[in-house]
Amino acid sequence: MKLEDLQTPCLILDRGILERNLKRMSSIVRKNGVALRPHLKTAKSAEVARMALEGEAGGMTVSTLAEAEYFAKHGFRDILVAAALPPSKLDRAAKLIDLGVVLTVISDDIAGATAIAQHPAPFRVFIELDSGDKRAGVLPDSEALLEIGRALGAKLSGVMTHAGHSYSCRSIECIKETSHHERDTVVAAARRLRAAGMRCDVVSVGSTPTMTHADDLSGVTEARAGVYMFQDLIQAIIHSCEKEDIAVTVLASVIGRNVEENRFLVDAGALALSKDRSTQPTDHDAGYGEVWDVAGRASYGNCSISRVFQEHGVATSAARLPLDQLTVGAKVRIAPNHACITAAAYDRYYVVDGTDEVIAEWDRINGW
Amino acid sequence: MKLEDLQTPCLILDRGILERNLKRMSSIVRKNGVALRPHLKTAKSAEVARMALEGEAGGMTVSTLAEAEYFAKHGFRDILVAAALPPSKLDRAAKLIDLGVVLTVISDDIAGATAIAQHPAPFRVFIELDSGDKRAGVLPDSEALLEIGRALGAKLSGVMTHAGHSYSCRSIECIKETSHHERDTVVAAARRLRAAGMRCDVVSVGSTPTMTHADDLSGVTEARAGVYMFQDLIQAIIHSCEKEDIAVTVLASVIGRNVEENRFLVDAGALALSKDRSTQPTDHDAGYGEVWDVAGRASYGNCSISRVFQEHGVATSAARLPLDQLTVGAKVRIAPNHACITAAAYDRYYVVDGTDEVIAEWDRINGW
Repeated sequence: MKLEDLQTPCLILDRGILERNLKRMSSIVRKNGVALRPHLKTAKSAEVARMALEGEAGGMTVSTLAEAEYFAKHGFRDILVAAALPPSKLDRAAKLIDLGVVLTVISDDIAGATAIAQHPAPFRVFIELDSGDKRAGVLPDSEALLEIGRALGAKLSGVMTHAGHSYSCRSIECIKETSHHERDTVVAAARRLRAAGMRCDVVSVGSTPTMTHADDLSGVTEARAGVYMFQDLIQAIIHSCEKEDIAVTVLASVIGRNVEENRFLVDAGALALSKDRSTQPTDHDAGYGEVWDVAGRASYGNCSISRVFQEHGVATSAARLPLDQLTVGAKVRIAPNHACITAAAYDRYYVVDGTDEVIAEWDRINGW
Repeated sequence: MKLEDLQTPCLILDRGILERNLKRMSSIVRKNGVALRPHLKTAKSAEVARMALEGEAGGMTVSTLAEAEYFAKHGFRDILVAAALPPSKLDRAAKLIDLGVVLTVISDDIAGATAIAQHPAPFRVFIELDSGDKRAGVLPDSEALLEIGRALGAKLSGVMTHAGHSYSCRSIECIKETSHHERDTVVAAARRLRAAGMRCDVVSVGSTPTMTHADDLSGVTEARAGVYMFQDLIQAIIHSCEKEDIAVTVLASVIGRNVEENRFLVDAGALALSKDRSTQPTDHDAGYGEVWDVAGRASYGNCSISRVFQEHGVATSAARLPLDQLTVGAKVRIAPNHACITAAAYDRYYVVDGTDEVIAEWDRINGW
C-alpha cells in the first residue's frame, strides 16, 4: 500500500526518523549516567514502546490508567503513572499490580497520599515536586514534603518533577538553566527525605527540552521525556530538534482551492490537527500546522493551515502557491505544532520509512 | 450508577436540556416554514439523532464518511455529507448508496464535480456557496456556479451554504443580517441555475446562530444546524442560548490543590477539554472551560480552567475558591467552550436527567 491509497485524514509515522530520535535521546541520557524511563503519552503505542525501551532499563512512564492497562496487556511490567490519581482510581490501578506490574503512582497532597498509604495494594509512590512549572508538586523545602513522605511510609520510593516550563524557553542557555533547577529541586527533596530517615531510591526528572540539553544530572537516577520520539514544530523552535526530525505528520487531501485568493482547503481541520497553537507566541507561528508535500518536504514555502473548522483546514502562504499542482484530490502532509495533542485524534499510525510505501499499521490507545 | 461512581474524565449529557434544545430549534425552523436537516457532527450519536429527527423530515447532515457509515448502520437513510470529498473517497461513499442511503455530497470545484459526475453511483449533489465565511464555496454570481452545475448534469439537486462567520457576531442584529445574507446567497444561486434550465430542488442553509435568529427564510427549503443540540459557552456568548442550556459537560476529579495560590488541579487537560479557545476573543474568556459543581451549577464564581497540559487542567478564579470542599477526589463539571471539539475526545456519553443518576450510556462515532 502507498500513501496515495490511504483515506484521509490519517496519521503517518516515519520509522527511520523515529529510530534516529530514539537513539539520540538514549545516548544523551546514557552520557549523563541515568536511566531512561520514556514517557509514552505521546506515542501511546506498544510498537513504539518496544523500540523506545530497547537497551534501556525497562521502565516506562504513562499519563493515564488507560495507557497503563494497554501497556500491561502488551507485556510491559514497570510503569509510572505520572499524573496524580484521585482515590477513586486506586482500585482500578491496583488491578495492574495483581497482573504483575510494578506500578508507581505520584502524589503531592497529604489527603491523596494518605488514601494511597491506606489502600491494601503495594503501590510504589513518588512525591511530586514543583520545579517552577506551577502545575503541581510541593516545594523541596516545604513541610508538606516531609508530611507526605511520612504519610506514605513504606510505599514512598522516590521523588519526581517535570520542568514543563522549559517549553517557554527560547534559548539553549535558558533550557540548561531550567534543567539545572529541575535537578536541584528533586535532589534537594531526596536529601531532605533521606536526612529524615525516609527512603528515596528514585530521583526522577524530565522533559524533552531539559533532557536534550542536560549536561549535569548529578544525584538524579532517571530521566523521563516523551515527545522527543516524534518531535514537532514547537520542539524545533525551542531547539530540541530540527524540522527534519519530525517523525509524525497528518496526511490530508485537497478538497477545494481558490486561485484568486491563493489558498486551498484540506480535509484536516480542528479534529484532525487539534486546536493546539503552541507556535503562536513564537517568531514562527505555523497556524495549526505546516503544510509539506506528500513526500514530507517543505516544498510550498511557508505554507501553513491558518484557519480550521471542525473538518476543514485552510492552507495559505505568503508566497504564491502552486495551485496548478494542488488540485482537488492531491495529498499533502501537515507537520503538527504539538505531536502529543494532534496524535490523540487517531487510533493508528500508518508507518513509512522514507518512501511512500506503507510498511506497517500500528495501533494507539486513546481515552481514559 | 451515580456521577460519583464514574471514572474521570468523562462526558456527561443531560437529556432534559437536550430535549429542550431540540424542541426550541424544531419550533423556530417550523415557524420559518422549512425542513430541519440536523447536523450530527456535534453529537455523533444514533440515540441523539433519533431524538433530533423526531417529527422532522428525516434527513440528516454529517461531516465525515465515518459518521455517514455509522448512521447508515443505525438505519438512517437520508444523509448529506457537508464537507467536500476528494475523488478518492467516492467509491467508499458509493457503498452507502448500495445500502439504500439517499446520499448527497457537495462540491464547489469543477474538477471535483466532474469526478462525481463521471462516477457510476447516483450521487445527489449540492453546489456549495460562499455566503461570507471564505472557507469554501463559489459566489452566486460566478461563472463557476453554472459550470459546476452543467458538469454535474442530472446529479445536481440543490445548493447549500454555511454562514460560519455568524460566530464572530456579538449582537443579534449582526446574526440576523448574516442570516439574511446566507439566505440571499443560496436563493440567488438557485434562481440562476433554474434560469439556466438546471434543476435545483433543495436550497439549504444553516448555522446554529443564524437559524436561532432566522426571521425570513423565503426561498430556502431546509435548515442545517448542529451545536444547538448541546450548546456551549461560545453559543451562550453569541446569543444562541443561555448557559443553562448547555447539555454537555466534562466530569473531572480534583487531583491536587494549592490553597496559597487559590487554585486546584483536575484530571481533565488538553485532551479531555480540547485546546479550543473560542471564548478568548470575547468579553467572557473562559480559558479552556468553565468549572461548575458536580450538580452542574456555577457555584464557584467565575472559576475556569486557565491552563491545560495533556492530562492536567489548572482551575483558577478571581474569587476565593472553596478549597476546603474541593479536596482531592472531589468531582466538578466543566462546561466546554465549543462542544463539537470537546466531545470528540470521547467514545460515549453518560446520560443524566437533572440529577446525579446515570440513566444511560450512549455511544459516539469518532475518526474518519
